[in-house]
Amino acid sequence: MTDTSKSTLMAHQVLDSIRNVTGPGKIPLHEPVFIGNEWEYLKECLDSTFVSSIGSFVDRLAVDLQDYTGASYAIPMVNGTAALHMALISIGVSAGDEVLMPALTFVATANAATYCGAVPHFIDAEDRSLGVDATKLEEYLEAISEQRQGKCINKQTGRVIRALIVMHTFGHPSDLEKCIRLAENYNITLVEDAAESLGSLYRGRHTGTFGKVSALSFNGNKTITTGGGGAILTNDREVASKALHLSTTAKVGHEWEYKHDAVGYNYRMPNLNAALGCAQMEKLDELVEGQRALYRLYEREFSSNDKIKLFTEPEGCKSNYWLQSLILTEKNDSLREEILKVTNGDGVMCRPVWKLMHQLPPFRDCPRMTLDCAQSLAARIINIPSSPVLAKTA
Amino acid sequence: MTDTSKSTLMAHQVLDSIRNVTGPGKIPLHEPVFIGNEWEYLKECLDSTFVSSIGSFVDRLAVDLQDYTGASYAIPMVNGTAALHMALISIGVSAGDEVLMPALTFVATANAATYCGAVPHFIDAEDRSLGVDATKLEEYLEAISEQRQGKCINKQTGRVIRALIVMHTFGHPSDLEKCIRLAENYNITLVEDAAESLGSLYRGRHTGTFGKVSALSFNGNKTITTGGGGAILTNDREVASKALHLSTTAKVGHEWEYKHDAVGYNYRMPNLNAALGCAQMEKLDELVEGQRALYRLYEREFSSNDKIKLFTEPEGCKSNYWLQSLILTEKNDSLREEILKVTNGDGVMCRPVWKLMHQLPPFRDCPRMTLDCAQSLAARIINIPSSPVLAKTA
Repeated sequence: MTDTSKSTLMAHQVLDSIRNVTGPGKIPLHEPVFIGNEWEYLKECLDSTFVSSIGSFVDRLAVDLQDYTGASYAIPMVNGTAALHMALISIGVSAGDEVLMPALTFVATANAATYCGAVPHFIDAEDRSLGVDATKLEEYLEAISEQRQGKCINKQTGRVIRALIVMHTFGHPSDLEKCIRLAENYNITLVEDAAESLGSLYRGRHTGTFGKVSALSFNGNKTITTGGGGAILTNDREVASKALHLSTTAKVGHEWEYKHDAVGYNYRMPNLNAALGCAQMEKLDELVEGQRALYRLYEREFSSNDKIKLFTEPEGCKSNYWLQSLILTEKNDSLREEILKVTNGDGVMCRPVWKLMHQLPPFRDCPRMTLDCAQSLAARIINIPSSPVLAKTA
Repeated sequence: MTDTSKSTLMAHQVLDSIRNVTGPGKIPLHEPVFIGNEWEYLKECLDSTFVSSIGSFVDRLAVDLQDYTGASYAIPMVNGTAALHMALISIGVSAGDEVLMPALTFVATANAATYCGAVPHFIDAEDRSLGVDATKLEEYLEAISEQRQGKCINKQTGRVIRALIVMHTFGHPSDLEKCIRLAENYNITLVEDAAESLGSLYRGRHTGTFGKVSALSFNGNKTITTGGGGAILTNDREVASKALHLSTTAKVGHEWEYKHDAVGYNYRMPNLNAALGCAQMEKLDELVEGQRALYRLYEREFSSNDKIKLFTEPEGCKSNYWLQSLILTEKNDSLREEILKVTNGDGVMCRPVWKLMHQLPPFRDCPRMTLDCAQSLAARIINIPSSPVLAKTA
């Protein structure tokens, strides 16, 4: 058999395995599930006429998120990108700083740093978590950085390395313990991009509560959705207060005066979207369980495949399994392309992972370490349909 | 009678006049009205599961806005601030540019320029429209600017004056004819901040269709609302295409690849919010008529008052009368403060106009012309309850 016909055969096997789980029809990559009080809360919101950025659902969503994650403060935002931007601003990331972040991430992570005038600095991934390789990062920082007046300076660029963003890829927690120690040792502020990891625990504690500040996303493709939306989590009162102030046009409290004491943003989540969020939060555990059950169904299908492995949560973690991921055991571009063609062609939505950040035109010239593992993963990952409702179909 | 007791007496007269129109109870400054298909469209949106940035209501809202305003392109955005930011970026405003704008505006106008790295440059208002004084601006530009290679250069700062933002205060159209001519003569791009003027016409044509690009807002306090939301209007295909691309994370079209060719933004309006917007658009004419009827009711109350005038739409314009405005004929700080105290104290929400931009800490050092008229107006304006539903109560 030629390599091409081998690839085609295997692609069809993958399609069959996925179809065994999803059943027939057009299968989106990740579809929201509205099985609770969504409808009722939207009606209540409309009836109150409070649909905009002030309203009881915004306050309630904040409390729900605090209760669920254990964070002291949650601030709903207009989307995950806005949350990331506010997270970075609220810890003092500013023009000319560098922000360490995975090359393997969604573009919002790099964009948010850019909005602050900061420079993304890309770091490598590890196979175990798909997140930051803290061991390699430590060696790298040892080589390229020095401490000056309590700051971490990139010796090559002269810039301050202000923050390290850890992103929990597809919902799987990164190696937080090592990252926390590293950030402390190097005087770098730890930020969690928890956009994908609502419902994911690291050693029993919710992701997004380890960094100084973190960002969640409730985009339509996430575990829960508010249409568009996101939130900041933090245990630091000062950070929370700064993020709240700056995301509300930096308006200074007064009964009727319009005074703004800084360049602010219009980043607060509207009450209409928060109403949807409150209903979704009530179902979060159920949705996470659905995503975890889906993993088990896929695992049954792929466990005997020696060319393609289904990605499993790292040890010590309970992952929300937001996006199910197949990983080719060896780089094989034609096989990957063939799987994408065959599955998508049949109406089963599958996706490669994001293009690595340093390969995107706006970030080509940003500093970076060697990115061997990220590059290898990017060539081998295929995300497959991940809606929690699929676990019930099967 | 002392001045204080005179002020108190007059403040109570103002309260009585407003109460004659609004009736009793707590009266907000501007409350949304949901009397159409809001509920039905939200349900339809939820049932479709397309609540996020892709969906039929987003497309429909764009078409509805195009049909209503006559603009060739409308792009719904997450809010008015985002729309302003995209408007400026899409016409090429960039770091180090200056952007002319009224000192008398909401802070979003100045913030949006700052997001581009540009410097706001504040200009004076005129009594007739509460908008840009084009005659005074022309004299000013004659004195401070020079043309160099087809660009307007501020001789004092050496920076390019890239754009002139005209803001239609409280929905009343600015003097667009003079502003258009001025912008042409000085090679400055005209932008309309039409956040407040949906439904307002200048010489029979919709505001927001005169500039190269304009921004609308559908915040909860506007004539129509989408919870949070806004839109860009333009007749220029290139501008529309740039704004659409950059507001959609600058993602390059591909069936499954994630490629982004510029620093982009997550600024598209979610379908959930657009569903509300589509229902609101169906009632827009009715809502504008309500606001205009409210003006006539207030006019009856205030026509015989020689110390306080109700602001009337400029000649040649049909205003949406988004915010009704009382203007003291003479500056009288204690009277203004007393009116604000007495009305708000009685549950009738009244507001002074925004603090002038050059008086806000982040914009204190920005260039500006003399701002006599803006300063005089800012000391004399009081906005009074403006919900269209009040015209029916009376």
